[in-house]
Amino acid sequence: MAYQTDPKRDLVLERIVDVPPNLVWAAWTRPDYIKKWFTPAPWQTVGCEIDLRPGGLFHTVMRSPEGQDFANSGCYLEVIENKKLVWTAALTADYRPQTAPAPFLFTATILLEPHGAGTKYTAIVVHGDEESAKKHGEMGFHDGWGKALDQLVALAKTM
Amino acid sequence: MAYQTDPKRDLVLERIVDVPPNLVWAAWTRPDYIKKWFTPAPWQTVGCEIDLRPGGLFHTVMRSPEGQDFANSGCYLEVIENKKLVWTAALTADYRPQTAPAPFLFTATILLEPHGAGTKYTAIVVHGDEESAKKHGEMGFHDGWGKALDQLVALAKTM
Repeated sequence: MAYQTDPKRDLVLERIVDVPPNLVWAAWTRPDYIKKWFTPAPWQTVGCEIDLRPGGLFHTVMRSPEGQDFANSGCYLEVIENKKLVWTAALTADYRPQTAPAPFLFTATILLEPHGAGTKYTAIVVHGDEESAKKHGEMGFHDGWGKALDQLVALAKTM
Repeated sequence: MAYQTDPKRDLVLERIVDVPPNLVWAAWTRPDYIKKWFTPAPWQTVGCEIDLRPGGLFHTVMRSPEGQDFANSGCYLEVIENKKLVWTAALTADYRPQTAPAPFLFTATILLEPHGAGTKYTAIVVHGDEESAKKHGEMGFHDGWGKALDQLVALAKTM
């Protein structure tokens, strides 16, 4: 990809998965699917709202193993079916700036490319500064997003 | 327009101007033009960089009458020629979350509709909370954006 990333402020997960792009896309864009894979167990995603258009809301509620709920509202920026999904935690519905407190803000770009019968999956997560990227990394970005992707793939195989 | 606005968190400037949409568009999207109208005199815009695409940088440097410079970096979200321009101060180039300190963040939508030989011009500025909108209003949103629009129209007549 021609994506220029900044190693100090960005986190990247790149992997080949053995399910096709349209199923990965479905998993990312349907609330019923999101609830099944989005958070690495034993965390759960207990709520999800999706308004799939630039400026549309992406809302999730994550539940900790202790039963505490964390709501997150973001905004879609680019929606290119089966290929590219971009959303940011810095804005909410209709591009309204975020005001909910968060340890850091990020924008995530999910790129899907056909790879044989599977998909080359790339998640690029950009942060405003090095400190935010470091915090996100220490909170387990690679392990967390990787485990969630395993769950996504397992789900896609049942579609 | 079908735009739903929130009177407590949004600021709106709507006006009919007697220059056509394509000239208003040019004024908003060319750095040499931006420098000529963007800040109400005696403020000046002394620098401008434009990467006109969703995810592209919109950078300006404003100079106060006392000679102090204020740099602002935002990000374009929607670019529909002669019709709609959306940019946000909550993100910078490539959708990276903003980190520069600011009194408030906002997202601006500029809508242009043909109106006779002129343009129905609508600027909708959305904020994260009422406090930000109030602050922006008190800093002179209507007077400032209105004066700047007068300058834009005067410039467009020379194009």
